[in-house]
Amino acid sequence: MASLPRAIRDVVDSFERLPGIGPKSATRLAFYLLNTSESFCRELADSINNFKENIKICGECFSVAENELCEICMDKKRNKRQICVVEKAIDMIAIEKIGLYKGVYHVLGGVINPLEHIGPEDLRIFELLERIQKLNHKSQITNHKQILEEIEIILAISLTMEGEATALYIKNKLKGNTIKITRIGAGLPVGADLEYADEATLSRAMNGRKNM
Amino acid sequence: MASLPRAIRDVVDSFERLPGIGPKSATRLAFYLLNTSESFCRELADSINNFKENIKICGECFSVAENELCEICMDKKRNKRQICVVEKAIDMIAIEKIGLYKGVYHVLGGVINPLEHIGPEDLRIFELLERIQKLNHKSQITNHKQILEEIEIILAISLTMEGEATALYIKNKLKGNTIKITRIGAGLPVGADLEYADEATLSRAMNGRKNM
Repeated sequence: MASLPRAIRDVVDSFERLPGIGPKSATRLAFYLLNTSESFCRELADSINNFKENIKICGECFSVAENELCEICMDKKRNKRQICVVEKAIDMIAIEKIGLYKGVYHVLGGVINPLEHIGPEDLRIFELLERIQKLNHKSQITNHKQILEEIEIILAISLTMEGEATALYIKNKLKGNTIKITRIGAGLPVGADLEYADEATLSRAMNGRKNM
Repeated sequence: MASLPRAIRDVVDSFERLPGIGPKSATRLAFYLLNTSESFCRELADSINNFKENIKICGECFSVAENELCEICMDKKRNKRQICVVEKAIDMIAIEKIGLYKGVYHVLGGVINPLEHIGPEDLRIFELLERIQKLNHKSQITNHKQILEEIEIILAISLTMEGEATALYIKNKLKGNTIKITRIGAGLPVGADLEYADEATLSRAMNGRKNM
C-alpha cells in the first residue's frame, strides 16, 4: 500500500475507522470517489461536516431533532401516553420503519452495564420517571371522568443480559404507579429454523406462545 | 424515515449512493458519526473534499500519482521491461498487496465493451503500444550485445468475456513484435470446492494444469 498517493491513503484510513468497513471496502470506496463527480464528493463532505452542528437532542424524548422537539414529539396525532423506551435513537428509526407504532419514544442512551461502569444515573431513566410523573399528574387532573386512556411503557430494550437488567430496573422503579409496562416479544426471528435456535431463544419462544 | 432530521437524512442519502452501502448501513454510519468526535467528522470530510485536487494521473502508467509519475514508475528497482496491464488502478493495488511483482503497470481504464459503447480508442491501448515501441527502440540501440532482457506484457485483465476480448485485441496488436505476452492464470480460486465450480472455470483449471 506504500505506493498509494497520500491523499487516497487519508480517505482509505478515514473510511476504515467507520464500523463495518474493512480495508478492502475502504479502498474500493476511495477509488469510487476518485472516479465519481467532484460535486458528489463535495456534497458528501459537506453533509458530514455540517450535520453535527445542525442536530439537536429532543427535549422530550432525547432522540435526534432539528428543533427543540423532534418531529414525533411535535406530532399531535401521536399518542403521548404510550412511550416506547429504546436504547439508542437508531433503534427508534428501526421501529418507525415498520410504520405501525403510533405512540412516542424515550431514548435511554444505553443500558446498565457494570463492566463498562454504566449505571442507571448515566442513562435517562430519571428523565423517563419524570415524564411519567407529569403524565400521571395530568391524568389525575382530568381523569375523574376516566376519559384518558391508560399509560403504557413499552420496554423495547435489547434482549441481552444488560438489556434485561435495565428493563427490570425500570420496571421496579415504576412500581406503585398504575401504568401498564410491557416488554417487546421474545422468540424465534422470522425465517429462522427451529433446529438451529439457541436454548434461551427457544425457551422464550415456548413461554411466549399465543393462541391461534 | 420522515422523522429523521434533515441533516442526518443528507448524510444517509450521501452514504447510500456509495457502492456496497445499503439504507441500513448508511443509517448506521450516520448515527456512528453523530456519536463520534467532531474532529473525526472533520477529518473524514476534509480527506474526501481535498483528495481529488491532490491526485494526479501518472504520465507513464496512468495509475494514480502524487506527482507527474507514480511511486512505482519512479522506483528505479522496478523492472521497466515487464508491464502488467490492468483495467483499473485499484486492480494494481490488489497485485501490489501480494508483494511479489517487481515490474511496472499499465492502467487501461476499462475493457472493450460494445454494449456500453467502449471501443479500443476509449482505452489506453495506443499508449501501451507506444510504451512498448519506446522500449523496443531502446533495445535495438543497446541490445547488439544482448544485455537487455526480453519485454514481457502480462495481461492481468478480468476473466470475463469483455476482458478476454480486450486481451485478445491487445495480443493481436502486438503481433510481429518480439515480446513475450502472458495472461494471468485461470482456474479454481484458493479454498474453492471443486463440486461447486462452474464448467467454464473447471475447464480452464483442467487446461491450466501443471506438473507437480
